[in-house]
Amino acid sequence: MPSSVRNYVRYEQSGKVSYGVLDGERVTRVDGDIFTGAEPTGESIRRSEVRLLWPCEPTKIMAVGLNYKSHLGDRPAPSRPELFFKPVSALLPPEGTIRIPEGAGNVHFEGELVIVIGRKTKAVSPEEAWGSIFGFTCGNDVSERDWQKGDLQWWRAKGADTFAPLGPAVAVGLDYRSCRIQTRVNGAVKQSQFLSDLLFDPSVVVSHASRALTLHPGDVIYTGTPGTTSALKPGDTVEVEIDGIGILKNSVAA
Amino acid sequence: MPSSVRNYVRYEQSGKVSYGVLDGERVTRVDGDIFTGAEPTGESIRRSEVRLLWPCEPTKIMAVGLNYKSHLGDRPAPSRPELFFKPVSALLPPEGTIRIPEGAGNVHFEGELVIVIGRKTKAVSPEEAWGSIFGFTCGNDVSERDWQKGDLQWWRAKGADTFAPLGPAVAVGLDYRSCRIQTRVNGAVKQSQFLSDLLFDPSVVVSHASRALTLHPGDVIYTGTPGTTSALKPGDTVEVEIDGIGILKNSVAA
Repeated sequence: MPSSVRNYVRYEQSGKVSYGVLDGERVTRVDGDIFTGAEPTGESIRRSEVRLLWPCEPTKIMAVGLNYKSHLGDRPAPSRPELFFKPVSALLPPEGTIRIPEGAGNVHFEGELVIVIGRKTKAVSPEEAWGSIFGFTCGNDVSERDWQKGDLQWWRAKGADTFAPLGPAVAVGLDYRSCRIQTRVNGAVKQSQFLSDLLFDPSVVVSHASRALTLHPGDVIYTGTPGTTSALKPGDTVEVEIDGIGILKNSVAA
Repeated sequence: MPSSVRNYVRYEQSGKVSYGVLDGERVTRVDGDIFTGAEPTGESIRRSEVRLLWPCEPTKIMAVGLNYKSHLGDRPAPSRPELFFKPVSALLPPEGTIRIPEGAGNVHFEGELVIVIGRKTKAVSPEEAWGSIFGFTCGNDVSERDWQKGDLQWWRAKGADTFAPLGPAVAVGLDYRSCRIQTRVNGAVKQSQFLSDLLFDPSVVVSHASRALTLHPGDVIYTGTPGTTSALKPGDTVEVEIDGIGILKNSVAA
């Protein structure tokens, strides 16, 4: 990655929550609001000595369905981004454990590029939307397929506790189009796609969302999953990796 | 109403936000967290001198579809509460203006009883759920019917800015079963139903939601609308009134 990419993390150490810049195996604490101007301090610590949290604090989480040709199957391509909500109570940090909910038997991974909004945004054009995108991170849009089929709306299929793993870092200045996303389960590659294959690019997604509602700094939008997905089982480890951002790694338990 | 019912409001006066108890035309400021023990102070002010805000600060908003026989039409009654999310960016205070979004032509009112959660809640039975319910308020689950039919999920149909009017007060100690909900547009009654007609009562709704996800103090659940709904137009005034809670009154503009 070019050195102009900066990776912001949020972390906890000795009970204190801070924002920092991740560079290899070191985290340098920053002062200030990452969205309006955070300055690195002289305080640096090894990544292994902190607990990474989800890297920003959204007031809402949105997600897109059907945003790669490779995921459509026999469904037609949508004419606009098809969005839905996940609740903030579903957030899970890097290294956190995805819990199979009571009564759930068909919980799938969905590795995704996630947009992080940087400023208050309403009714912007796609061109203007680029200015609202602070950076990108990795997400796993964990989905219970039986609930997704059987319920009127996807509230618990997409919104159960631990169903929104997010992180490890927000990459600022990343040219996502040249990056690849890969999802692995127990080390085996399950999804692999270049992000240039998105049907609706991040600017179109943000513009469409903003026509109806106001986005706030820290709000996130999962952009959809490529290829096919399959069920996770207790004991599995699932990793979502995007070049230049890092690896979002979570275990699975009953 | 029995004098044991207390009506909590949240309000702004001279730029300062406070919680208070509304009694007739006076608001008495309270100290502390309304969910863990707020004490009335000696400070009292006329309601007309403050600006009422939505009466609690949810981290998420849920809502139920199809929860009155009178609203089902020819649809079968659901076997469980059918939930969905509205984003917190859709919240609108009492007296706030519902804005018809760009491109929207079929925006309906939905007068509803709203549950206010009082404590952190996960995986409770219906019996236990009563202990998680702090009180009740009025809500208008504003809905764009064309988007509701045409989109894959209801994100903007139910989630556009200003689509979640809430208030004016959270009634604690109210026996909702003996209360009536009434929705009026420009003074004409459009919906009128006793709340005892709910198909899934609040304890069943909270229990079902809590099986999948964690509810937090201040989270709210709109419980569904009775009867039929119709389109609002700029210049309309819509009121949702529940005995013992008050009137949630909003104007409509383009």
